[in-house]
Amino acid sequence: MNLEKGEPTTKKATLKELATLVGGEVSGDPSLEVTGIAALEEAGEEEITFLAELRNLSRLEKTRAAAAIVPPSLPAFPKPVIRAPNPYLAYAKIQTFFTHRPYQPRGVDSRAHVGRDAKIGREVSIYPFVFIGDGCQIGDRAVLYPGVYVGDAAQVGEESTLYPNVVIMDRCIIGKRVIIHPGTVIGSDGFGFARDGARYVKIPQVGVVQIDDDVEIGANCAIDRAAMGKTWIKRGVKTDNLVQIGHNVIIGEDTVLVAQVGIAGSTEVGNRVALGGQVGVIGHIKIGDGAMVGAQSGVAQDVAPGQILSGSPAFPHRDWLRTQVVFPQLPEMKRTLSALEKKVKALEEKIDTKKN
Amino acid sequence: MNLEKGEPTTKKATLKELATLVGGEVSGDPSLEVTGIAALEEAGEEEITFLAELRNLSRLEKTRAAAAIVPPSLPAFPKPVIRAPNPYLAYAKIQTFFTHRPYQPRGVDSRAHVGRDAKIGREVSIYPFVFIGDGCQIGDRAVLYPGVYVGDAAQVGEESTLYPNVVIMDRCIIGKRVIIHPGTVIGSDGFGFARDGARYVKIPQVGVVQIDDDVEIGANCAIDRAAMGKTWIKRGVKTDNLVQIGHNVIIGEDTVLVAQVGIAGSTEVGNRVALGGQVGVIGHIKIGDGAMVGAQSGVAQDVAPGQILSGSPAFPHRDWLRTQVVFPQLPEMKRTLSALEKKVKALEEKIDTKKN
Amino acid sequence: MNLEKGEPTTKKATLKELATLVGGEVSGDPSLEVTGIAALEEAGEEEITFLAELRNLSRLEKTRAAAAIVPPSLPAFPKPVIRAPNPYLAYAKIQTFFTHRPYQPRGVDSRAHVGRDAKIGREVSIYPFVFIGDGCQIGDRAVLYPGVYVGDAAQVGEESTLYPNVVIMDRCIIGKRVIIHPGTVIGSDGFGFARDGARYVKIPQVGVVQIDDDVEIGANCAIDRAAMGKTWIKRGVKTDNLVQIGHNVIIGEDTVLVAQVGIAGSTEVGNRVALGGQVGVIGHIKIGDGAMVGAQSGVAQDVAPGQILSGSPAFPHRDWLRTQVVFPQLPEMKRTLSALEKKVKALEEKIDTKKN
Repeated sequence: MNLEKGEPTTKKATLKELATLVGGEVSGDPSLEVTGIAALEEAGEEEITFLAELRNLSRLEKTRAAAAIVPPSLPAFPKPVIRAPNPYLAYAKIQTFFTHRPYQPRGVDSRAHVGRDAKIGREVSIYPFVFIGDGCQIGDRAVLYPGVYVGDAAQVGEESTLYPNVVIMDRCIIGKRVIIHPGTVIGSDGFGFARDGARYVKIPQVGVVQIDDDVEIGANCAIDRAAMGKTWIKRGVKTDNLVQIGHNVIIGEDTVLVAQVGIAGSTEVGNRVALGGQVGVIGHIKIGDGAMVGAQSGVAQDVAPGQILSGSPAFPHRDWLRTQVVFPQLPEMKRTLSALEKKVKALEEKIDTKKN
Repeated sequence: MNLEKGEPTTKKATLKELATLVGGEVSGDPSLEVTGIAALEEAGEEEITFLAELRNLSRLEKTRAAAAIVPPSLPAFPKPVIRAPNPYLAYAKIQTFFTHRPYQPRGVDSRAHVGRDAKIGREVSIYPFVFIGDGCQIGDRAVLYPGVYVGDAAQVGEESTLYPNVVIMDRCIIGKRVIIHPGTVIGSDGFGFARDGARYVKIPQVGVVQIDDDVEIGANCAIDRAAMGKTWIKRGVKTDNLVQIGHNVIIGEDTVLVAQVGIAGSTEVGNRVALGGQVGVIGHIKIGDGAMVGAQSGVAQDVAPGQILSGSPAFPHRDWLRTQVVFPQLPEMKRTLSALEKKVKALEEKIDTKKN
Repeated sequence: MNLEKGEPTTKKATLKELATLVGGEVSGDPSLEVTGIAALEEAGEEEITFLAELRNLSRLEKTRAAAAIVPPSLPAFPKPVIRAPNPYLAYAKIQTFFTHRPYQPRGVDSRAHVGRDAKIGREVSIYPFVFIGDGCQIGDRAVLYPGVYVGDAAQVGEESTLYPNVVIMDRCIIGKRVIIHPGTVIGSDGFGFARDGARYVKIPQVGVVQIDDDVEIGANCAIDRAAMGKTWIKRGVKTDNLVQIGHNVIIGEDTVLVAQVGIAGSTEVGNRVALGGQVGVIGHIKIGDGAMVGAQSGVAQDVAPGQILSGSPAFPHRDWLRTQVVFPQLPEMKRTLSALEKKVKALEEKIDTKKN
């Protein structure tokens, strides 16, 4: 077996079949069969490749692939092509076609712990060393890898996958087709303390985390339960690894959080927002639908829908780009300014002298 | 059961009892009974709410709650109130009263591993799949959730809670009433290497981590063991999630580290310090008692007690605030400066011309 | 037992033996025996200490240690010394000598899961609650602590150590003498999605992670598997805790990543690079051999070999240092600039007046 590609699936597909799958059109032999999809340089002679961006055309010309998915605007090409409106999306669909294996339920391993009154769905895979608390509900075809912990009364929806060592604390609710990568913690206590003189008194965090359908959460993230009510990750959200989400935060549908983002408590992030890597967001603000924030930025106040921001603290990205050009010139500006001050003083004196 | 609130405790309390608990005074019927505490908008008709800040008075006026905890300065209010010096602290205490359940020890599960010569206290809860190394000491009423690892000769104090998949490496010392959230690693090797030409030679990290009483550590944090001696987290420290603490760091009492803070080796943080989210601190410096550092700042030199800093690298917060106003104007300043240069040059020429 | 030092090894060595070990020369009695090595202030009367930097000479003068490792340039000193070209490296080697214990294999615990067709080497230590998937290869003398997960067909090389709760996903390849600290995830899915209107479609991540020999990865890190092909961590790389490495990234030999660094997908980092704490690097760029990037910097474009950068976005460190001096003076510069504008305007008017 080639470890980098995994066990071959021995699937094949004609260009016609793939074109139907991705909503594209074949130029060339529609009955040509391919066995997989790979990047321009990596594809073999029995595979199809894809050109996501026209500027990579010269790399396409050198590919060994038998065929290619290309944008509709690509002119004539010597090999068979499938013209598709979004070649990158077509790649996602074709890669899924070639690499997807039928699901084989493992059942509930005898070395797993299943609590009292837990309801376990059909065709699940509960690996060894999984702990499922009392009163949990685990949906049909859910997969819980070794070391997963599901606290009392928590719920995991149908066809969701909890990778090894994922922790779902008590009463948290995980939707359907949710994927949570290894080591991630859902429902740890929010960071809430009241000062009592110099010391801190813990505020019980009695709420939950609710994760809606089709969410994917990266590895080693932490999503805190609400102080009261819920921390809410809505349908379709995708987070990268090592992301921190504070208590009572709401993340809107189809929003994307890149690695190491941190969002403080009670902030509300809209739908289709994109936060770049290592972005920090303070608590109790709102980020409007469709906003985008550049990597490493710090968001310290409300963001209007559709705004594009950068910087720490963040301001409009276009303005930020301009400041970045000037910023390294600061020492020179300072020198120029000092020199000008002297010149102006000299001029003032000259003029005063002339007056007298 | 309402998942967001958990199993009702069926506790009740009169306003008089709650006033005694929080050191407040009742205005209105002291025998009025309430069944819980909730935020202004969420509280039901049998619950009490709280007004932490006077500017939220209009929200208090709309609450359905039967009564409210309010600051002493609040004027007359149509519903019964408890005037308390710190309503937020009162909320913490009352929430604890209503949601606290008596501790039920589970004993030591037969599927846990307990090493040779380990001393296990009374009334502990050791869940399945816990690993306790040789010679460990686990205090009375300690709770070790599934997947917890406690290395050889490590100690966990009375009434401490290690949530699922917490790792305490060998010889580390955890005090009493310590809470460590899931996935956190205590006592991983410090990051210490000596260069040997182009390569690195590992420096054995033979020290430990000592965590004193009443500390709370968030989820998926990493606190490294000392190269020699100890990394020391003192009484009452609270850290949020994904915090990194390097070897030989000392964190003073009642200090608060917000999510994703990173502190490099051998730095000493004083008592009652607060570091905002994503702050980075270099190694081998001292941060004085009571200092505060704004989110995303980078601390690169000693900080005097009580200082308030922001920026990367950090400088006094008040000055930083002023620079943030001016910073986006940099491109405009640059243009103004260039224009001024030309004008001054023109003036100089005019004057010279006149002279001649 | 002294927890901070661990069980004494009762090893002893003469200065002559230690000098041979570190390639140094003894001044004083070469037969003097010491029982350990410790820092200047901590060393006892039977131990040796080390002076890594000459500026700490006054601290050396107060040490209780019996002897010291010192740089060759140190003048005469009243106690016996070993002059070594790199005292810090000598410390690493001597500490290893004194604290290293012979490896005692535990074998395969009956409470571990070993999958079908897994090949387990000789003298391994597989702790309870370890999960080894089907077709894995575990090398001789490898140590897998409790809670470790090794996915199907993954490989772990000889003498590698996977600390508790480390996750190696399927087909990933771990070399020899690799150390992975607790909670770290190797081979989680890369963050790859294609847009389909407002929603995202997951791109199957079918590649792997390959970690070469003598790599050390910190605690709670995440290293994603490649979309296709491999994410590649080359020989001798050292990463601190909470580091994020995206899919298809390549990290060159002997490169060092300090805590909380994040590197986005497909970026190629050269050999002997050093990235400071919390540095972020965007995807699809190249960082040349020997480059260095200061803490909290953001790298947004290719970096030439040997460059030293700081800032977000990063630019040459020397220039950055100068801007940091001027930056807090921005508000003052703005005021000076405004005042100058007025003065120049006044001058212009005066001159114009004179003209007329």
